[in-house]
Amino acid sequence: MERPARIPDGVRAHLERLGEQAVHELIDFLRIPSVSALSEHRDDVRRAAEWVARRMQRAGIEHVEVLPTPLHPVVVGDWLHAPAGRPTVLVYGHFDTQPADPVELWTRPPFEPWVEGDRIYARGASDDKGNMMVPILAAQAWLQGGQGLPVNVRFIFEGQEEVGSPHLAEFVAGRRDRLACDLVVSADGGQFSEERPSLTLGTRGLCAVQIDVKGPARDLHSGTYGGTVQNPIHALVELLASMRAPDGHVLVEGFYDRVEPLSAEQRRYMAMVPHDDGAYRQAIGVRELFGEPGYSTLERQGARPTLEINGIWGGFTGEGVKTVLPSEAHAKLTCRLVKDQDPVEIQRRIEAHVERHAPRGVEVRVRRMEGLARPYAMPVDHWGNRAASDVLQEVYGREPLLLWSGGTVPLYDIFLRELGTYTVTFAFGLPDEPVHAPDEFFRISSLRRGMVAWARLFERLAHAP
Amino acid sequence: MERPARIPDGVRAHLERLGEQAVHELIDFLRIPSVSALSEHRDDVRRAAEWVARRMQRAGIEHVEVLPTPLHPVVVGDWLHAPAGRPTVLVYGHFDTQPADPVELWTRPPFEPWVEGDRIYARGASDDKGNMMVPILAAQAWLQGGQGLPVNVRFIFEGQEEVGSPHLAEFVAGRRDRLACDLVVSADGGQFSEERPSLTLGTRGLCAVQIDVKGPARDLHSGTYGGTVQNPIHALVELLASMRAPDGHVLVEGFYDRVEPLSAEQRRYMAMVPHDDGAYRQAIGVRELFGEPGYSTLERQGARPTLEINGIWGGFTGEGVKTVLPSEAHAKLTCRLVKDQDPVEIQRRIEAHVERHAPRGVEVRVRRMEGLARPYAMPVDHWGNRAASDVLQEVYGREPLLLWSGGTVPLYDIFLRELGTYTVTFAFGLPDEPVHAPDEFFRISSLRRGMVAWARLFERLAHAP
Repeated sequence: MERPARIPDGVRAHLERLGEQAVHELIDFLRIPSVSALSEHRDDVRRAAEWVARRMQRAGIEHVEVLPTPLHPVVVGDWLHAPAGRPTVLVYGHFDTQPADPVELWTRPPFEPWVEGDRIYARGASDDKGNMMVPILAAQAWLQGGQGLPVNVRFIFEGQEEVGSPHLAEFVAGRRDRLACDLVVSADGGQFSEERPSLTLGTRGLCAVQIDVKGPARDLHSGTYGGTVQNPIHALVELLASMRAPDGHVLVEGFYDRVEPLSAEQRRYMAMVPHDDGAYRQAIGVRELFGEPGYSTLERQGARPTLEINGIWGGFTGEGVKTVLPSEAHAKLTCRLVKDQDPVEIQRRIEAHVERHAPRGVEVRVRRMEGLARPYAMPVDHWGNRAASDVLQEVYGREPLLLWSGGTVPLYDIFLRELGTYTVTFAFGLPDEPVHAPDEFFRISSLRRGMVAWARLFERLAHAP
Repeated sequence: MERPARIPDGVRAHLERLGEQAVHELIDFLRIPSVSALSEHRDDVRRAAEWVARRMQRAGIEHVEVLPTPLHPVVVGDWLHAPAGRPTVLVYGHFDTQPADPVELWTRPPFEPWVEGDRIYARGASDDKGNMMVPILAAQAWLQGGQGLPVNVRFIFEGQEEVGSPHLAEFVAGRRDRLACDLVVSADGGQFSEERPSLTLGTRGLCAVQIDVKGPARDLHSGTYGGTVQNPIHALVELLASMRAPDGHVLVEGFYDRVEPLSAEQRRYMAMVPHDDGAYRQAIGVRELFGEPGYSTLERQGARPTLEINGIWGGFTGEGVKTVLPSEAHAKLTCRLVKDQDPVEIQRRIEAHVERHAPRGVEVRVRRMEGLARPYAMPVDHWGNRAASDVLQEVYGREPLLLWSGGTVPLYDIFLRELGTYTVTFAFGLPDEPVHAPDEFFRISSLRRGMVAWARLFERLAHAP
């Protein structure tokens, strides 16, 4: 398991050759404004899908198809001629981009790529067009410079990741045979820094509710009626305050039932991640950090669940004073979930809490909102992680950091549920590349380092499980 | 003290004659659209002032003057020839009106008065043009039908009551000699019902604050940052929840320091007022009433202080879900005050509470808002009340109810502070007359009954103090 991945000389030569052409190809790819959120770019997303399909075919990937979904298309393909007994890897990436707004803050037009030194600038350069090209190029090097790929490889590139992959679960569920694999490797994401590689082992789940408090049938005058009827805003703030202790611990009954204590192993890995509370505090612009006692900032961010009020409104919010006792008040909440917390069960827990703690004199309703996602966590010692870790160690000369992200990536859970496989994150974006912001760029050096890493990963996975 | 007020026959005859003309005069007065809130009616307010001044002169009132303020004028006048030792009464009313919006809901144009049976319809009919004419007519009856008024009378009619009497305190403070009196009698307000008279003995005070909670320098992603920094909305709801117990009792330290327990006498009077919790509940549209335990609805409404959140806002309030950890959150609060509570002291108490209970990890600021008003309470056994009570008993054949209003009427406190005199409310509007709403009307019978009552009151007050 610990031996270095060996890459044949022919593959190595092709990696170099392809790496030189790749910049021009990526620039061509980046010219397509495949903004999935904007309907006027629907044809552009389709053009990007076709660009990807053609590029895959040129790489020697077989059965390439552009398949429809109710929104944007998905591109699939495979190469399944590895020696008997070798695992099958499903490579994931996306060819759609975020909108370019605010366009006026870009140095140059966001879909007219430009190169400065090591950097290729354009919307989508890092997220995810640069990154998703890498495994195609690495596969091509094996297919043209060696004797085929050392593992079976399938590909799935979607065109709607930036709008939340709304049809991915349905798509995957409907094509389990075509996508069956032993491991998913995602080419969407990045490394901790140029010097320090990383693997993301978990993401938090999500559920959302809206709480609506209804009091009197109409807004009342607070002089004439104040003191005689419950004020919906008071009822709401009491209810919300009952859900979280002042130290940040969530008080919704049963909220932590499926949350195990952090393992000593995970805490050790999290403690290895370079992090400076002072710098973090300054970047956010707060005097002090805050959260559940007994956990470090990174633990609270990546491995502990939260209940967060995202919005609140009710009554008079204009200038000056209005002595109104309002008819209603509302709040929006989301929870970030970890371990075995189930988003629907947590919505139910909130409903039960609200029922138990509902203030007198008002009607309180909990609305379950869309956008559920289960938390995701891959075992640290999973063979896919071990393989990826070995390769990163070889390529960077340092052991990768293990990260647990506070955010939510629905596709990991989709692949786990629908295909029964975990997802290894293997991508080469870097934190200073402004994804979702003006002047997004990707590094040419990352593109080339990524190609070598992917080529090695294919070889390493051949002997992994 | 208990003898009936005697009105000379000549005065009685004049009351009858003047009462017959009064309807036509009031219609003339109501044609002037003296809307104080709208600058395009500035000249109309002035015309109304001049109408009042002429009418006072015709009544025999002396030293009538239209005096300027920075906004709308005030009309003053007096008749100070009562026998030596008689008290001086200051009569208050206002000749401005609310805007007529929504005009389309009126049966006829709001400034083209019309009569139907006992009712004169027009904007301002009840509030306060009909009511404020009554003491002028009653004074005229004494001046022309008797041997002068039995008391010294001064008059102050303002043109900006409907915009909150913004210059009244300054005006009164600058003319203390001209307005000096032993008692103010206000011709603005009404009676409990056509059958049951009433006197309002108190109004609640008011103070307002805005609470601003500032967290991170910008809105943050709740996945990436949730769990590591204080959420300003959570901080705000905790802080607000700390200010009021779930049963409605205010928890701001020192809030009740200057609030004495309700006297047995006041509770007895409040219990006499016909009130049906069920009907009240239905009118408001709530399943149950709510408020401090141990007090009746009318006690909580009129004689207990409140702290009320009038508005709250922060974060995302649109459709759907946005996983934002917002940068700030805000709330607007007003307190209704009773007894010796001082509005500025209560603002300070709230500031101190906020300082003591400020949640960690955010900056909290309390902004003092304008619109302060002290609570007002006239002693039940004040000679002015006893006189008014005796007259109402004679005129209605029933003892008046004593009322404590939950609302705020700044002018009572202004007269108390600046002139050292309490205000007796002596007006004849009725609760079904839609003041501040379409199809406002005043009853011709109220106009005439009011004239008799005012005429008797002048006589009764001559022997009162």
